[in-house]
Amino acid sequence: MWPAKICQNGEQMQAQVTKKTLNEGLSILERVIPSRSSNPLLTSLKIEASERGLLLSGTNLEIDLSCMVPAEVQQPASLVVPAHLLAQIVRTLGGELVELELSGSELALRAGGSEFKLQTGDLEAYPEITFPANSDATLDAHELARSLSSVRYAASNEAFQAVFRGIKVEQHETRARVVASDGFRLAMREFAAPGESRSMIIPARSADEMVRVLRDGEVRLAYGDGVLCLQTDRVRMNVKLLDGDFPDYERVIPRDIKLTVKLSAAALKEAVSRVAVLADKNANNRVEFLVSEGKLRLAAEGDYGRGQDSLDVDQEGSEPAMSLGFNAKYVLDALGPIEGEAEMRFSGPTSPAMFKASGDEGYLAVVVPLRV
Amino acid sequence: MWPAKICQNGEQMQAQVTKKTLNEGLSILERVIPSRSSNPLLTSLKIEASERGLLLSGTNLEIDLSCMVPAEVQQPASLVVPAHLLAQIVRTLGGELVELELSGSELALRAGGSEFKLQTGDLEAYPEITFPANSDATLDAHELARSLSSVRYAASNEAFQAVFRGIKVEQHETRARVVASDGFRLAMREFAAPGESRSMIIPARSADEMVRVLRDGEVRLAYGDGVLCLQTDRVRMNVKLLDGDFPDYERVIPRDIKLTVKLSAAALKEAVSRVAVLADKNANNRVEFLVSEGKLRLAAEGDYGRGQDSLDVDQEGSEPAMSLGFNAKYVLDALGPIEGEAEMRFSGPTSPAMFKASGDEGYLAVVVPLRV
Repeated sequence: MWPAKICQNGEQMQAQVTKKTLNEGLSILERVIPSRSSNPLLTSLKIEASERGLLLSGTNLEIDLSCMVPAEVQQPASLVVPAHLLAQIVRTLGGELVELELSGSELALRAGGSEFKLQTGDLEAYPEITFPANSDATLDAHELARSLSSVRYAASNEAFQAVFRGIKVEQHETRARVVASDGFRLAMREFAAPGESRSMIIPARSADEMVRVLRDGEVRLAYGDGVLCLQTDRVRMNVKLLDGDFPDYERVIPRDIKLTVKLSAAALKEAVSRVAVLADKNANNRVEFLVSEGKLRLAAEGDYGRGQDSLDVDQEGSEPAMSLGFNAKYVLDALGPIEGEAEMRFSGPTSPAMFKASGDEGYLAVVVPLRV
Repeated sequence: MWPAKICQNGEQMQAQVTKKTLNEGLSILERVIPSRSSNPLLTSLKIEASERGLLLSGTNLEIDLSCMVPAEVQQPASLVVPAHLLAQIVRTLGGELVELELSGSELALRAGGSEFKLQTGDLEAYPEITFPANSDATLDAHELARSLSSVRYAASNEAFQAVFRGIKVEQHETRARVVASDGFRLAMREFAAPGESRSMIIPARSADEMVRVLRDGEVRLAYGDGVLCLQTDRVRMNVKLLDGDFPDYERVIPRDIKLTVKLSAAALKEAVSRVAVLADKNANNRVEFLVSEGKLRLAAEGDYGRGQDSLDVDQEGSEPAMSLGFNAKYVLDALGPIEGEAEMRFSGPTSPAMFKASGDEGYLAVVVPLRV
């Protein structure tokens, strides 16, 4: 099946690795490497065995990823094997230790009473994956992952929406800011991070993969030409950036607040979900918000009836009462990352409304009300 | 939306019910009642409120189901409301107690600060659902449910397979027997149950719903014309039976056993799953079983390589060795209900093989080996 030339140097390799660590490394790669491709080599992963262990690498052409798996290696060598098949085999293996042995073009895997022999692929033809050696900045990995997760929902999934399919990451002098929008709503989170000013747009789907590999500790960033490289202790990742200009989102953040309402985020989420059951799916899941006299009344009406709910709130501002209509799904998305007390800031019945956690300036969401 | 005549008698009803019990009742009904139908009334459920509580009923024309929910009822009345919408509302309600009130054609639901008003449907047009008052037999509900679940996998999902889409239930003098087959494999479970001899074929999908409502305790059965009725303390269910003759399955159960192999069911399942990763999906997921000298060797080969495994076994019989090929999926299905020690009984390399638990005559499976 594979050209014979790859066996030319009769490569030999032997390695012992624990099933658990190999499994972890393969799971990380498996999400990025496509399971089908017009170029079957792209469904493979590359294993570079050296004294440091096994370096597993793969790419989907949007993201390059490599992960170091500690292993005892007797003879260094490199090879390419079908990624998902290997991951599936390792998952089902019994025992704790896996032995790998390359002879010619065949990779043998042994564990317990099992032996698997896999045909290796064409190493020469496999795309070259390189990562920059230096790094330009360092961020708290957990904060970056949390910020990307918090705003992800607001990015568009529509192919035609260009930069709105991305998440903008801005480095200001003392803070990093992460922003997403689909034109109807916006989500933003900031965290403390000193660094040189700079901004980039990460495709939302690549951001999902970043979130998966980021854990606690620090992540080093290197800025290339149209590429962001992330490095942690075990993983290196190149992410292709989106071209284009993100619109000036600051102008949709309401400044002239006429009514501020505070209440339990959990109670608000529950009440909106409940009333939304009856909201009309063909009319943007419209739920009415009516604030007056220390009460928030929610109401929705659809083909089969109507629902309403009432919650006690703290309210303040120049307007004693206000009525707004929202897409219930947008409100629930906006409230998603908010725990404890939620704060809603209204600037008028048809002006953008802000949702945030009371006393926390990190995260905020903006939702445009539905027209009457 | 609904004809006005249903309000003619200006029915009134009031009831209090705990959210938990109402929720449980609705979840049982919700699985049977279709969420879409060319007759929208079929997506509704009927509520009959009386001193005994709320009797919830629904049908998908294959299964009629009713469930009694204890409630405090002030004024008895009957009504029809959209089933899935009601279930969704009740799931999201806050508080522990739900108040229901019917006035005219509107059903109000109140709990905590929430109020929902649902339009009721045309009660007169709703299909009549009746259950026989008597019962003909009594079975252990848990045993019946376990037997149906154990053999379910062997029933066919193919529309053209007629009676093979059903599960045969036979009552012999002292035992009940449940059998399913798709022509390539067969599964059967028996349990002690005295009763008059009788047999019927239950559609496999209806059997799934029976399993869901059967709990511990007894189930009373009533045999109608082409219908089986089940009654437990809280649920009554009519199941339309399948017409047709189930083929004589007894003749495929191997009697002339030449080799019996015993080993841990869990170890066998794991080894087959593992080796099957490399089996060829286009060649029936073929896995070779080779028994000799107290070992079971499993082997599979596909496009990307080959896998093998070896397990220690107890073997006995007139043949010292045998080699058979099986569809890995069929073997895993057959082993599914087996715990502890599994016993495989082989009558020849191309004759049907039997899978059962050692020392348990309740469940058995038959799988026809693949041709060489």
